[in-house]
Formats: sequence, structure tokens, C-alpha cells
Amino acid sequence: MIEYKNLTQTKSYGKLSAIKAYDIKHNLSGARIEGSSIREAGTLVYNYGAMPVDGKTIDALQALADEQQLIEKYRALLSGERMNTGENRLVLHQLTRGRVLDGVRVEADGVEKGDFYNGELEKIRDFSEKVRNGEIKGSTGKEITTVIQIGIGGSDLGPRALCYALNLIGPEDGCTKKLNARFISNVDPDDACAVLEGVDLERTLFVLVSKSGTTQETLANRDLVFKVMERRGIRGLVPQKHVVAVTSNTSPLAKTPDILAVFFMDDYIGGRYSATSPVGGVILSLTYGFDVFRQILDGAHAEDVCALEKDIRRNGTLMDAMIGVYLRNVLKYPYTAVLPYSQSLHRMPAHFQQLDMESNGKHVNRFGEVIDYQTGPVIFGEPGTNGQHSFYQLLHQGTDIVPMQFIGFREKEGNLDAENGGSTSQTKLKANLVAQIVAFACGRDNAENPNKAFEGGRPSSVLVADRLTPFALGSILAHFENKVMFQGFVWNINSFDQEGVQLGKILAKKVLSGCEGDENLMAYSKLLGIDF
Amino acid sequence: MIEYKNLTQTKSYGKLSAIKAYDIKHNLSGARIEGSSIREAGTLVYNYGAMPVDGKTIDALQALADEQQLIEKYRALLSGERMNTGENRLVLHQLTRGRVLDGVRVEADGVEKGDFYNGELEKIRDFSEKVRNGEIKGSTGKEITTVIQIGIGGSDLGPRALCYALNLIGPEDGCTKKLNARFISNVDPDDACAVLEGVDLERTLFVLVSKSGTTQETLANRDLVFKVMERRGIRGLVPQKHVVAVTSNTSPLAKTPDILAVFFMDDYIGGRYSATSPVGGVILSLTYGFDVFRQILDGAHAEDVCALEKDIRRNGTLMDAMIGVYLRNVLKYPYTAVLPYSQSLHRMPAHFQQLDMESNGKHVNRFGEVIDYQTGPVIFGEPGTNGQHSFYQLLHQGTDIVPMQFIGFREKEGNLDAENGGSTSQTKLKANLVAQIVAFACGRDNAENPNKAFEGGRPSSVLVADRLTPFALGSILAHFENKVMFQGFVWNINSFDQEGVQLGKILAKKVLSGCEGDENLMAYSKLLGIDF
Repeated sequence: MIEYKNLTQTKSYGKLSAIKAYDIKHNLSGARIEGSSIREAGTLVYNYGAMPVDGKTIDALQALADEQQLIEKYRALLSGERMNTGENRLVLHQLTRGRVLDGVRVEADGVEKGDFYNGELEKIRDFSEKVRNGEIKGSTGKEITTVIQIGIGGSDLGPRALCYALNLIGPEDGCTKKLNARFISNVDPDDACAVLEGVDLERTLFVLVSKSGTTQETLANRDLVFKVMERRGIRGLVPQKHVVAVTSNTSPLAKTPDILAVFFMDDYIGGRYSATSPVGGVILSLTYGFDVFRQILDGAHAEDVCALEKDIRRNGTLMDAMIGVYLRNVLKYPYTAVLPYSQSLHRMPAHFQQLDMESNGKHVNRFGEVIDYQTGPVIFGEPGTNGQHSFYQLLHQGTDIVPMQFIGFREKEGNLDAENGGSTSQTKLKANLVAQIVAFACGRDNAENPNKAFEGGRPSSVLVADRLTPFALGSILAHFENKVMFQGFVWNINSFDQEGVQLGKILAKKVLSGCEGDENLMAYSKLLGIDF
Repeated sequence: MIEYKNLTQTKSYGKLSAIKAYDIKHNLSGARIEGSSIREAGTLVYNYGAMPVDGKTIDALQALADEQQLIEKYRALLSGERMNTGENRLVLHQLTRGRVLDGVRVEADGVEKGDFYNGELEKIRDFSEKVRNGEIKGSTGKEITTVIQIGIGGSDLGPRALCYALNLIGPEDGCTKKLNARFISNVDPDDACAVLEGVDLERTLFVLVSKSGTTQETLANRDLVFKVMERRGIRGLVPQKHVVAVTSNTSPLAKTPDILAVFFMDDYIGGRYSATSPVGGVILSLTYGFDVFRQILDGAHAEDVCALEKDIRRNGTLMDAMIGVYLRNVLKYPYTAVLPYSQSLHRMPAHFQQLDMESNGKHVNRFGEVIDYQTGPVIFGEPGTNGQHSFYQLLHQGTDIVPMQFIGFREKEGNLDAENGGSTSQTKLKANLVAQIVAFACGRDNAENPNKAFEGGRPSSVLVADRLTPFALGSILAHFENKVMFQGFVWNINSFDQEGVQLGKILAKKVLSGCEGDENLMAYSKLLGIDF
């Protein structure tokens, strides 16, 4: 029997709250580090050696996870429970990559949802292969070489981060041919203007992505693109013949006249969880081939299966989530830095920022009641080693502690490296990651010159995989998705709605219709030079 | 007579601390908004209408600014005082764009520094014109069409953010021809690998940037690039003939054999303040023309002059800085979001993140004594409207308050726009900005459904200019630089060193030389697969 309780109503939270931060500065050791690795999907390992927790803390975290029934709730979600309470919807993004619970079928809207997602996947395979082998050409008979996704938020950040991440893969990862992928997201017309510069429209396919089909930015950018196509006036170019849509089946977008193809998602996949649905699938399959997208799905699926484990010491995602709760609610840290030591992952922090902050930045519980404890932290980050030459100063010597989540790989992704001063660039990259974890944890005293002293005790974890393959990428994506889900269960919130975005939309409409007498909107409109 | 006191030693801080947050939720009005604009350089305006301050707070902020002698200290800095106490160095980045104090000459190292910077500027003008008009060609006789900067931290973020920002400018902004600009920063070999893909090396000029000439990442990437050049083995291509350096005049980088040209900066320009020095000047002048770079300098210089004003109500930068201190030290907010409503500024938050966090993330005062109050906040951000569909959920409805700094423009930068649903994209962009400020400040009650309630009282300011011209860009850059400087004076810290980056460098070297028996480094090295 599943029960939903606020964090502060649980018995185990009281016990957890009494546990002081474990002193990693003085207790980090080779044995501790080696004993703090949890194997996840494929080669992925989560290591929490530099986190301020010991066996007692972990026992308390296990107790809280058990009391809040995290695995039971995850199973309920997978079985089709309406976990998105505010919107009364199922939550099915895991099902887009495979069935996590054997034999469990999820019926909704008169279809079995696993079959439905698989059907769309087959459509993507077929369409992407036809475009990639030249069977489907542009309206003037030329092969498609560029794919431009038009979408915003979840229809942009995840797909974009994944696309950039795989930039360097080649035949050894199952990618035989690469198309160029680009993205237009912002309603700022300068975004489309910059992206379309130098693009050969006769060889370009646009992917319009909006679940509702009413997203202001995406419709505005669609019209901008059509305008440019008509302005460039290439004989025989039929704008709509260069467009596919990803949307829900009730959406007006699905009815764009003369559109080339439509792929469906549904209300059970939140935008920020949609990278493994057609929202990410169409552009990833077009760009790198369907097989690569399939490997991403397989990596995510394997990770979804790992997350079923009840023992926190054998479930890296659960451990990550629960340590995060301890950092947030007991140690009161208001932020977490996500720091991938991989330039290819340079937009992954922006995706995880949405994933986490939009899911868990909530002030009410899943029943809509105001809660009295902290929920999701602010997430930010940039790739290392770049960040080391930027904001790490504050992380090392600032007046507040910022927990860190590192990501690293044993091998490089591309085929270029060179030695300089006795080591390769890849080894230098890894050496820096190792050095930072230890520097943050242990610090260095300097009584004579406090400006050169490092307090230490700055907590971090690290996710490590052999190499940034499509499979590993899918696993890392799912790790973060499931971490956020688990934390939402602990906090008893609904991680799958986003009511906080509504007021801005309402007021923006009001401004566009002349402010309706609202003097604040009028005054700022005047400042921004909006004419009525 | 200038005096240096810790924040908590001042009389005025005690008074400021007693002032409660002004209730903007119930007091925002058309008149308040209109009365809260401060004109800065050119068309730039800083508006603080939605900040939780009233006349009393502003008087207290003025008193604190006066007691901490902010303008006097700024003047001292401009006059050549050794403001970078830890490193015993002058701080002269403002001088790279002009003399802020008439007739003040700054002698150091046997030269007058203004003349020295102007001399380098003339070298940049001459060199960039010769490359752009084809007088200087690549070593195989082809015109240069691509410029790739190799640098990290301050040698990357600022120049890159400015380069991207001007992506859409054309002849009306003084740019007659555009070269392609690209950047390699990370020691991760995948960074160079991705950037060099598809680049025509015969037509490429590399700009190596490192003040010390010893930056690990930059030297490693230089060698990677040379390796690729040799590997591609084009007849007649002489790698070194495609390279210029920006460095200090004692640097080993200046002695790269057969290098095409060297431009000098010096120890008085911190990396994060170097965008207006040759660090930014060479690539900006090559990419857009020297005249465009000159306009950036002029915009920054005009802003530097505005910042001399003692009256906080007439100095937007000072107001911004002091309100930031109030938010940080009295209201205890640990972060600030920087949110430009301009896709062209998409990397500006990353630059401001370095600028602020590396400058003011300090735990000792300028004399190296540990302090007992908070210094710089965590800075993060993404462009709007993108962020609205991502992390704004937490900003609106999260359990903590995150202050925001918006940036907006009345006109678009490029030449593309279209109407959709009765308004242009640019108008929609601005309407969203207006809507967000008011939504954050005023919120919306909803007693029946707290999930649809917005608490309001979420503070923000906005910087507005007519259009993102090179001049406005320079002004915005200098606004943030000077804001950070003023806050450093209030906190009595040295905003111009970065001792916090040292320990990581030392430990990385230790790892590369086999860990020297450090078991923590050994254990993490093993996890990352570093072989010894």
C-alpha cells in the first residue's frame, strides 16, 4: 500500500536531520574512495567517496527512501499510475525506451502505450533511413544534408545537448553518415536569423516540435522560416515539403498543410523528459542514424532497470538522489554545480538545469498543499577544465559551500590527441578532474597566508564511464532523470507539472493586447519601447 | 585619505542591516517604475523598480558607498594605485579603452601604460587590416577566412561572448566584411577535434592567448593544432606562419619560432577583465574589423566615465552594485540569475559568471585576513525566452528566492522578423520580458489552488538599450565589470587575484607525475583509468 507523506511527516527524516556532516577533509582515504563506487548500467559508475556521509548517514538515507517508498512509487509510475497529480496524467517517459517491468502493459486513451511508442519509433526508423539514403529528397530534388529543429524548453535543451554530445562519433559507434543538426529556439528573431545564415534551404529539413502545437515561440519561428524560404524564392521550393512535426495527435501543428510527416508523442511525456521520445528521436536519427538513437534508448533503458534496486548501496541513482536530499534539507546547500569533464557535454548542464529546476522547483506537495521544507536546488555548470579557469575560484574559496557533481570518461571520444610535456591531453583532462575532487575535499591549510589556504570539506560526487558512447550518454541522461524523480518522491511533490510557467504566459498575452490598463505592464512596456 | 575597512566594521552597514525588504509586491506602480531608471552610457538605462528597496534603503546604500569610499577607490585604481594587493599589481583594464581621468598618466615598468596600450591597439589595427584586405595571406598564398582563438578562462569567455554577440552586425554597424571566428579552450582533446573538423587550415589564422605563456590547456592545444596541420600535410603549409600570440612580454609564448606576430598585454590586466585588451581585440578586429572593436572600447569607456558619479541615484552601476550587496548581505540571497533577452548574448552569462565569481568569491579581505560576512554570489543564467521554458519554474514557485538581472533591447539586431498572431517576434520577446518582471514582482494569489499561486516579491532589475550595437555591448560589459569592482570595494576584498585556482593546478601536476604516494589521488586516478 503506497502512502504519500510530506518529508517532515516521516520518522526517518527526524533521525537524518540529527546527523552531522561527515568530515571528509580528515577522513578521505584510498579505501574509502574505492569502497564508494556503485556500478550502474554498462560501464557507468557513481562514486560518492567525497560526499559528507558515512555508514550511519547512509543507513538513515536508506530508511528515508524506504519510508517514502521510493522504489514502490517508481514501480507504480511504471505501471501507469497517474503520478502527475496536478494534471491527472500518467508519466511514461521510461516506456519510450523499453519496458522496465516485464509483462506490464499500460493502457491509456484506448491504446497500449508501449506499443504506441514502438510504433512511432518504427516510423522514425523508416523516415530517417529514407532521408539519409536519399529516397526522400527536398522539394527541388536535392538530398537533405541539414536538419533544423524548431522547439523550445524540453523540445530544445535535451535533444540539443544529446546532438552536441555525439558530434565526434563515427562508424565505430554505428554512425555511418552525419547530417548537420541545428536548432532554433528563442522567440528572439535574431536566433532564427543567425541559424539560417548560410543554410542551403533546398537541402534542409525542419523539425517542428511542440506537444500542444500552440507554443508561441515555435509557431513564430515556423512563420519566420517560411518567410525566409519564400523570400529566397528558389524555383520549385515548396516550404511545407521541408517540414515534419513532432506533436500530440490532437494538436493544430499536426494539421500544417502539405507537411511531410508527423510523429506523435502524448501528454504522458513531460517536455523535459522527452529526449528519448520522438522529440529527440527524429533529429538524432536523422543526424546520426536510427541505430545510434537506438543505442541511446538502450543505455537509458538499462539504467531504468538498475534504478529498481531497493538497496541504496547497490543503486547509484538512489544514492545520488538521497545524498542530494541530505545536502539540501539537512546541510541546507541551496545549489549544485554539474561539471562534466567533456567538452562534448557542454550543453548537458543546461539540460539538467531544466530537468531538475523545472521538475523540483515547487512549493506545494503533490496534493497542492503548501510545504514547509526546501525542494529542488539551483543547478548550474560548465565543462571542466574550462570552469577551473572561471567560477571554481568561488567554489574553492568563496564564503559558501557549493556541492558538485562531476562527470568523467576514461577515454576520449574523437580521434585526435597529442603529447605535450610528457602526457596526452586526455590524461591531463582526467588528472585535472582527479585533482579537483581531492582539492575540494581535503583543501590545504596555510596559517601564514590565509589567501592561499583552502578550507576543504567541499563535497562532490563523480559519474565515470569508459567513453562517451551513445549507450553511456543514454545512461547518464536516465541517471539524472531518475535522480530527480526519486527526489520528487522524497519531497512528496509532483515533479511532472510546471504551473510556474503559466503566469508569465498570461501576462505576456496581456502586454501583446495592450496591457489592459495594468500600469506596471504599461510602464515596463514603455521602457522597452513597445508601441500600442 | 583612503581607508580600508571590512564591511562589518562600517557604521553604515549596521544601519543598512536593520532595513527590511521593501514590499514590491504591493507597492510596484507605474510611477515607481518610471522613477527608477538611471541613464548610463549611450542609450543604456538601468532600472531597479522591481528591487526591494525604497528611498530609505537607497540613502543607507549611499551612506555605505560613501563610507567605503567607492568612488575614491575607483579613482585611486585609475590613477595607478596597486589595488591588486595580493599580487602587488596595478589594475588597468579601464585604461585599455581610454583615459577615464583627464590628464592622469600611469607609469609602470618604465613605460606610460596608456601609451603602451594605445601602441598595441595600433598594431592590432594595422595587422587586422592587412589580414582582412588580403595583404597578409596564409603560408600557401591563400587569403585568411577563419580565425581560431586558443585560450581558456578570461582568454576565452569574454572574447567569445563578445564575438557571438556581434554575429548579426553588418555595414550599418561599421562591419564591411566578416571572417569566421571559432574558439578552442578545453584541454579535452575533443574540443580541438570538433572545432578543427572541416576547417580549411590554409585559410586559418590561430590566435594563441595566455598572459603567462605557460597555461597548460593553451600549450597542449597549440601542439594539437600543429599536429593536425602536419598530419594534413598540405604542401607549403608552414604551421607557425598561421599563428599569432597575445601574451605578456616576458612570456615563453612570445618566443614561438617563426610566429607571425605578437601582441602584448601585461600583469595589470586580469584575465577576466581582458576582453578590451588585445586578448579580445585581436580576434574581434580580425572578425568584424578594427572599427567595430573601437566602438566596443568607446562604449566601455563612456561607461567607465559614468561610473565616476558619486550620487547613487545618478550612477546605475553603483546602484546595481549596492543593491546587490543589500541582497547578499542583508537579505542573504546566495545567487543571482543573469537573463539577457537576446539570443546573441547567449554566452554572456558564462562570461559574467567568471567575472563575478572569480573576482568576488573570496574568503579573505584585501590584506589576506579571514572575513566573517558573505562575499560574491553564485551567478548563472541563460537567454530569455528560453529560460522561461526551463528553470523559471523554480524562480517563480521554488522554495527560495533568486534575484534576477534582466537585459533587454528595444530593437532587434539582425534583419529578419515576421508577424504571427498580430505581433512580430521582437515585440513578443519584449512582451515576455515585461511580463516576467511583473509576474516575479507581483505574483498572483490563488487560495483555492496553491499550485497555481505565485508568491511574488521576487526581485529583479533590468538593463535596457536601444539595440545591441558594438557600443552598447561595450557599455554592458563595463557595467558588469565596474559593478563587480564596486562590490569588491564594499566587501574590502581583492577582486583582482585568484589564489583559489592554484591548489587544483598543483595537484594536477602531482597526478601527472604519478601521485607521489598520495592515496586519494591514486584512488581517483584508478577510477578514471589513469595508468602510471
